Amino acid sequence: MSSELRMAHDAFHGVFPYLVSPIDERGRVKDAVLIRLVDNLIDAGVHGLTPLGSTGEFAYLNREQRRRIVEIVVQATQNRVPVVAGVAATTIADAVEQAKMYEALGVSGILGILEAYFPVAEDGVVAYFTAMAKATALPLVLYTNPQFQRSDLTLTAIERLAEVENIRYLKDASSDTGRLLSIINAVGDRIKVFSASAHIPACVMLIGGVGWMAGPACVVPRQSVQLYELCQAHRWDQAMRLQAELWQMNRVFAKYNLAACIKGALELQGYEVGPPLPPQAPLSEVGRVEVGDVLRALGARAVTGMVD
Amino acid sequence: MSSELRMAHDAFHGVFPYLVSPIDERGRVKDAVLIRLVDNLIDAGVHGLTPLGSTGEFAYLNREQRRRIVEIVVQATQNRVPVVAGVAATTIADAVEQAKMYEALGVSGILGILEAYFPVAEDGVVAYFTAMAKATALPLVLYTNPQFQRSDLTLTAIERLAEVENIRYLKDASSDTGRLLSIINAVGDRIKVFSASAHIPACVMLIGGVGWMAGPACVVPRQSVQLYELCQAHRWDQAMRLQAELWQMNRVFAKYNLAACIKGALELQGYEVGPPLPPQAPLSEVGRVEVGDVLRALGARAVTGMVD
Amino acid sequence: MSSELRMAHDAFHGVFPYLVSPIDERGRVKDAVLIRLVDNLIDAGVHGLTPLGSTGEFAYLNREQRRRIVEIVVQATQNRVPVVAGVAATTIADAVEQAKMYEALGVSGILGILEAYFPVAEDGVVAYFTAMAKATALPLVLYTNPQFQRSDLTLTAIERLAEVENIRYLKDASSDTGRLLSIINAVGDRIKVFSASAHIPACVMLIGGVGWMAGPACVVPRQSVQLYELCQAHRWDQAMRLQAELWQMNRVFAKYNLAACIKGALELQGYEVGPPLPPQAPLSEVGRVEVGDVLRALGARAVTGMVD
Amino acid sequence: MSSELRMAHDAFHGVFPYLVSPIDERGRVKDAVLIRLVDNLIDAGVHGLTPLGSTGEFAYLNREQRRRIVEIVVQATQNRVPVVAGVAATTIADAVEQAKMYEALGVSGILGILEAYFPVAEDGVVAYFTAMAKATALPLVLYTNPQFQRSDLTLTAIERLAEVENIRYLKDASSDTGRLLSIINAVGDRIKVFSASAHIPACVMLIGGVGWMAGPACVVPRQSVQLYELCQAHRWDQAMRLQAELWQMNRVFAKYNLAACIKGALELQGYEVGPPLPPQAPLSEVGRVEVGDVLRALGARAVTGMVD
Repeated sequence: MSSELRMAHDAFHGVFPYLVSPIDERGRVKDAVLIRLVDNLIDAGVHGLTPLGSTGEFAYLNREQRRRIVEIVVQATQNRVPVVAGVAATTIADAVEQAKMYEALGVSGILGILEAYFPVAEDGVVAYFTAMAKATALPLVLYTNPQFQRSDLTLTAIERLAEVENIRYLKDASSDTGRLLSIINAVGDRIKVFSASAHIPACVMLIGGVGWMAGPACVVPRQSVQLYELCQAHRWDQAMRLQAELWQMNRVFAKYNLAACIKGALELQGYEVGPPLPPQAPLSEVGRVEVGDVLRALGARAVTGMVD
Repeated sequence: MSSELRMAHDAFHGVFPYLVSPIDERGRVKDAVLIRLVDNLIDAGVHGLTPLGSTGEFAYLNREQRRRIVEIVVQATQNRVPVVAGVAATTIADAVEQAKMYEALGVSGILGILEAYFPVAEDGVVAYFTAMAKATALPLVLYTNPQFQRSDLTLTAIERLAEVENIRYLKDASSDTGRLLSIINAVGDRIKVFSASAHIPACVMLIGGVGWMAGPACVVPRQSVQLYELCQAHRWDQAMRLQAELWQMNRVFAKYNLAACIKGALELQGYEVGPPLPPQAPLSEVGRVEVGDVLRALGARAVTGMVD
Repeated sequence: MSSELRMAHDAFHGVFPYLVSPIDERGRVKDAVLIRLVDNLIDAGVHGLTPLGSTGEFAYLNREQRRRIVEIVVQATQNRVPVVAGVAATTIADAVEQAKMYEALGVSGILGILEAYFPVAEDGVVAYFTAMAKATALPLVLYTNPQFQRSDLTLTAIERLAEVENIRYLKDASSDTGRLLSIINAVGDRIKVFSASAHIPACVMLIGGVGWMAGPACVVPRQSVQLYELCQAHRWDQAMRLQAELWQMNRVFAKYNLAACIKGALELQGYEVGPPLPPQAPLSEVGRVEVGDVLRALGARAVTGMVD
Repeated sequence: MSSELRMAHDAFHGVFPYLVSPIDERGRVKDAVLIRLVDNLIDAGVHGLTPLGSTGEFAYLNREQRRRIVEIVVQATQNRVPVVAGVAATTIADAVEQAKMYEALGVSGILGILEAYFPVAEDGVVAYFTAMAKATALPLVLYTNPQFQRSDLTLTAIERLAEVENIRYLKDASSDTGRLLSIINAVGDRIKVFSASAHIPACVMLIGGVGWMAGPACVVPRQSVQLYELCQAHRWDQAMRLQAELWQMNRVFAKYNLAACIKGALELQGYEVGPPLPPQAPLSEVGRVEVGDVLRALGARAVTGMVD
């Protein structure tokens, strides 16, 4: 990517769907369906793409599968929107290696995730994200998710990390929206905040957020973009009406395994992305019906063959 | 209270400070300071008063202290605003007795809290709140706080309780704002939602809430009322600017024991409410400095002798 | 009690059943069945009695019900074994008052429980138990239960409390047996340790415990005493065979609400103790069958009318 | 290994130290020190060796590092004792591949660990371990650790897995010893139970366990073997005296990151195993002093150059 394009893409904002990772039974990435999903999402107006988030099953893929997913997404995107790839590791060495690999593949930014088996002290957390940031010239999005991670990004750690040049964004997957306002009050001049599907995006926009990175945007991209635009225009009451409707989707997804749900919903929309990797269970029949109902209620693509 | 007044007061909305419970060393309620606090809060424009919430140390008072607190608050209020008293119990028998006693004292509503030692199944939760509601003619506010309670009000339980005639409000003290939107989507036509200090009140107003019940409103009543009015007027951007400033207070309170903090802050404002009941620790010296700084930053009464 | 008797009773050891609290529908203590239970347990050889433990629903009784339970148990016991009554409170003032009241009623010891709504710092925990100990001349048993309490007795707090003259015992209801060995290693010369039903009593005896305080001993008192005697005689292999059988009971009780289970089991044995206080649910039909099966397998009284 | 040897080794029992994974700054396995540790442990009488347990930092090593660790340990052991290698994965595909790889390298058994990002339902848990078991002819040890894992092996799941031919052992790293007795009561005829360092090994032996797999045995191997032999001889009182002393070590290790502690302790004993992989912190100076004190108190190798 040219430095001009990088700059343009650098100011990340708006709707970034978390892409699923379609893998066939023999462990190979299903290129065609992933390319088609990328194309359709960009056509629907999304502002960026995020492979290898939670919904992208980063914790279930091996190194080669991860690499291949990023490679396909970058190639399919053709610089139309920024690609921000997830880097998740337990060691600094692994995180640095992944970040460099994805930079070489042409991504526009890194979404940094710290995995852990033993709890990590704050100094270790800061060392990990600092090393990852310094490994590339790309902007880094800190990912924090108290629910699924064993170490948390405390406000103090975030304040220390905000001093690192290219740590520029934070994506929070807790459900504690007040925590986001505290972060914005403390470091909002240096770190921009993205919502996750556990927050109400319109509320996060109201308090100063710049967008959201979330799985559900894969299946309701147009409505998500519309919501973002209403928020951008400060038409809060109108935004809230759309938001209340879209929230049905967040709730149905919260009931099920995230990856199983988004993959199941995409299957309903005609994308043959397959089930999540075993032993994760595919979306149950009850779940399929419930997801289908919500999709139809929202006017989204909901049956195989439908045109979005 | 006349039935007319009751009706007027019945549509609870706006800012309801959680009153502290000033108790002297011999266990007697300090009438004078409580009466003065009630007067000043009503003068500052609050829309209601809530004795015996978490901040009111309901869990630390005996039966006679609780009764006396409610009696004083009702008398001092003189029907200028509705008084919604907390009823907290582990048994149905105790809850029913308290509710009847407070109704006899003249409160306008009941804030229902379920305490538990062993976990309670959903049927037990529903039976408890239903019995409490049926014990009086007063509107009941369901109180839910996953952090401090051993049983939670699930969405299903709330849907069942919404069928009870006088269960009309819910006050949620989780920090999960999305949960409130789900509740409003499901039963918003029957149950009105109040925020707690763990949520961003402006966000709860945006999604359809009707106000907040919270300890911090004791010390910044005028600013809280101003925020409520901006939200009511749908002036969301202006509301948000004030909200971001006020949030400093919520965060400083979240750092310390709630009752110790509000009592400490009120002492700084010249109300001799005393410390929380031992073995709870009073606000530390560091806490006092931090609370004082925030109060001054917000232009609130912050030193003994100041006039609000 | 004479000072001689008090001394004799003072060296608490062995099996202390947690007595249930039989309350009728109008809230009155059912004297007759409680007296009969006390008599039968003493005849079965138990070494002490503990009213107002968890199984005794201390958290569900009002002040007068608690007082009456202790009064009846003391009178029925007639100094045949020591009575150690539970004192549970959130404030120091309430704890001190209860302890004095039970001392006046003639108990031989106090089981001290700290309830809390807000977390309590270590200094507060130490102040609470110290004040309770100093309020009477009776030996105090510290009760610690990380599962149901909001504050924990850390090893440091226990070491500080071991300095108080009449804090002489500890009863631990965690399931972490290693924690008990750490406590014994640290303060075993001053504090004697009782097991709860969440530990394997024979293991606690092996590591240096002096007995157990637990609900199940109400329904299998003879077998519990036999197990204690085998442990006392250091016949560990024989003890373990009996222990493995008795453990079926602990597991079935762990599946259900403790009070509901013991009350349900006692009903099966012909004691009309009634259900736990609402909204706690009585033992389910499935639970009754399972408890009955275990009682029969253990050769315990298991049907109405059987003689133990 | 010949089928005769495999059979002999198959009846796993006794003390299995969890080996650390010594990795240099460039990510290479430090062969020499690992070989020396293996030799010394076998000379000290341990009954087996377990590479790639928690203490072995399985969650921090890449595929090649894991493979190399197992290869070295198998070669150094030369069939003197069984080697049971840890297989940890989030997907069935990865678990099966690792198990086959280690079987090909000559291990005697597999220690199966399920990692997860999203919670896994019981059917998924059973499918995972069943697939792993069927992938090789080796005996499988189920590893369960509620503290660090997102899915738990419930008693029901264990009962289902006990039906699989070569699932023969279970190693439990919870601290709930009663849970082990329930497991032994339910499936003790098919599944043999190993303790972890979170339990008191002598207690687990008393209730029917066959040994323990734990990090501390790396640094006090002779004392651990002596404890095992006393238990085997049913000399419980003598065993308990040694156990109480050795427990100091378990407690000091529980205070710190497991891998950091065992690596730090081994460094004190003259093994240059290095620090844990960053961002894990090495054992602090305070920790080194405390560990050194305990080692000396136990008469273990405690300073560089000492002969064990």
